[in-house]
Amino acid sequence: MDRYLIVSTDGHAGLPMAGYRDYLDAKYHKAFDEDLPIQIRKTRKAEESFLISEFNDKWRAGITDGLTGAWDGAVRNRVIDGDGVAAEVLFPDGITEMNAPPFGAGLGLKPWGIEPELQWAGARAHNRWIAEFCREEPLRRIGLAIVLMLYDVDEALAEVKWAHANGLKGILIPALMGDKDAYNDPKYYPIWAFCEEHQMVIHTHSGPSPDYNFSLPGAVGVYLTEFAWWASRPLWHLIFGGVFEQFPKLKFVITEVSEFWIPHMLEMMDVRASVKHTSGKLGDFRTNLTMTPSEYFKRNCWVGASALFDEGSMAVRHDIGIENIMWGTDYPHPEGSWPKTKEKLLNVMSGIPERELSLILGSNALECYNLDSKALLPIAERIGPLKSDFT
Amino acid sequence: MDRYLIVSTDGHAGLPMAGYRDYLDAKYHKAFDEDLPIQIRKTRKAEESFLISEFNDKWRAGITDGLTGAWDGAVRNRVIDGDGVAAEVLFPDGITEMNAPPFGAGLGLKPWGIEPELQWAGARAHNRWIAEFCREEPLRRIGLAIVLMLYDVDEALAEVKWAHANGLKGILIPALMGDKDAYNDPKYYPIWAFCEEHQMVIHTHSGPSPDYNFSLPGAVGVYLTEFAWWASRPLWHLIFGGVFEQFPKLKFVITEVSEFWIPHMLEMMDVRASVKHTSGKLGDFRTNLTMTPSEYFKRNCWVGASALFDEGSMAVRHDIGIENIMWGTDYPHPEGSWPKTKEKLLNVMSGIPERELSLILGSNALECYNLDSKALLPIAERIGPLKSDFT
Repeated sequence: MDRYLIVSTDGHAGLPMAGYRDYLDAKYHKAFDEDLPIQIRKTRKAEESFLISEFNDKWRAGITDGLTGAWDGAVRNRVIDGDGVAAEVLFPDGITEMNAPPFGAGLGLKPWGIEPELQWAGARAHNRWIAEFCREEPLRRIGLAIVLMLYDVDEALAEVKWAHANGLKGILIPALMGDKDAYNDPKYYPIWAFCEEHQMVIHTHSGPSPDYNFSLPGAVGVYLTEFAWWASRPLWHLIFGGVFEQFPKLKFVITEVSEFWIPHMLEMMDVRASVKHTSGKLGDFRTNLTMTPSEYFKRNCWVGASALFDEGSMAVRHDIGIENIMWGTDYPHPEGSWPKTKEKLLNVMSGIPERELSLILGSNALECYNLDSKALLPIAERIGPLKSDFT
Repeated sequence: MDRYLIVSTDGHAGLPMAGYRDYLDAKYHKAFDEDLPIQIRKTRKAEESFLISEFNDKWRAGITDGLTGAWDGAVRNRVIDGDGVAAEVLFPDGITEMNAPPFGAGLGLKPWGIEPELQWAGARAHNRWIAEFCREEPLRRIGLAIVLMLYDVDEALAEVKWAHANGLKGILIPALMGDKDAYNDPKYYPIWAFCEEHQMVIHTHSGPSPDYNFSLPGAVGVYLTEFAWWASRPLWHLIFGGVFEQFPKLKFVITEVSEFWIPHMLEMMDVRASVKHTSGKLGDFRTNLTMTPSEYFKRNCWVGASALFDEGSMAVRHDIGIENIMWGTDYPHPEGSWPKTKEKLLNVMSGIPERELSLILGSNALECYNLDSKALLPIAERIGPLKSDFT
């Protein structure tokens, strides 16, 4: 084939807030109706103090019609065709601010501050909708279920099973653990076991953080310095907890955390796991591991590389592992590459060997999500960017 | 001079727990008497599950008499003479476990879980004692006061003033901020202003972390992966908060966080502070800064490099900044270089140019703490390691 098959591993989809009502169990309608205006007000307030309207408004001028692809399948197909994207992994929070699932169950979800029952209701509403949305295009839409791992394990496991039975291919778990049992707790093994057996890919995605006071000077700088760490924190709980040792085929993806620091993170874990006089007093915590942390990473983990992908990312691609990076457009978030994905790809990736580009742009994702590459090829042949443009 | 003048910037001193009673205000004696057996029990328990007795016991065989230098001045002088150390910066927690100030006011202090009034009482007891301990050897002992910044600012400022009036040369602040106002809050300006004016050096030290469940597999690995981040977190609050912009001569030291990752931390801040399409939606948070984060670091910050100092540290010394690294022995902690500092220095530092070694081993600290180098020279001439041994 003379074109690249692109799978974007960072897409977002979600209904306009009010639309989630129809996907909620009826008994939560009252709570939803009360909460909706509060959520809308909160979002507006966040826009004032944090998400800058001016930037967003300017950026949106001219592409407004593309934004509705967050929930409108026909628009979505048109935009991703134009972007050369054959298939997409779909996280919640369609247009960042205005398409989050109800009751705080979206990207920024925290296992505190809201009744677990309500947060579950919101997560299930989104999961029902995204399953429906993916059924329209089962080949091109790779849906993820929001699974609130940190409350009741049986309830979480039931939702993972529901997601699998309904065609979803992975789960988004809370990155923040708060005071809940951390991910190195063996109580979560039944969930990892099911995900391993049924190739359900586990994800965290950047966004969630503790509650900073954004009225303080520099708080955004602090957030930007820390967000990748918060999103990636479950990773080293799983690695040191021996989860990938117990479940050697389990798949874990951290998305939109920027790439330049991944080698730093791997070095940190490897240094700390190496035998040192200085940690001797803490005892041997490595008895449950047969490999180094970075070896588990290379075997079990991927980076969903999207909005923050740049020349710096390409420079460290071999340190991360060519087979551990999956490209994404972040559509329809404002910081993503769409609707100019091809131009942006050319800027960053010109001159990269074809074999490497094939892996980063598509083949790694085909493998990770166990996709039907044969069926996707004709789509890529129609819309994918020409390989010759990158040489 | 044909010998190096060594200033160890990571020493620990503290009374055996019971000894702090005499330095507490009488009204806290009852609480102290009730708390002491609980603290001792907790420490024993920590030794079982976390700090491994076997390791500590083996390590202590043969050097037991040196340990009492945590509070015994004559022993301390003998040990540091033998180690070639002319002067020392003194943090709390003498022998890690059994010499912490009362009421959780030691290295691992958290701004939660204990009455601020009690924690303050414990901090003041240590501050009184360390001031007394330093008065015995005002030239060689550089004492730090424990200052509980995150409660009442006026109370904290009063303690900083007391510390300065009583000969202490810096303060140790809580690294963990919990739900208290973060260090980028301008409400702390009066403290930074006093510290800048009176050359009181501000410190964090590794150790504190949120409460992990150490009975879970891999929890120690998680702790080791995260401890340096927790200890360093105030740094980027101060940098992005514009504190070093407002107080250009303020001095901040992060101690025992290991060196290899400092360049990574600086890169993280610089990347996040650089203008990017991807953070545009968050608005401009850099209006309070005139330099890059790493430039503030080079001007205002130092790394207290001690137990974790190794070949990897030396490899990145120019990336950190030769003038920003200060060596330390961690005496009398088990992971430190004592009582074989000279051998360990030779292992790691042989072949390093004399100018660089002079800075790392002593001159940077002379400058940072504004020490009397003339008076320290005769001591170094008597006990310091020969420069010729390092060539």
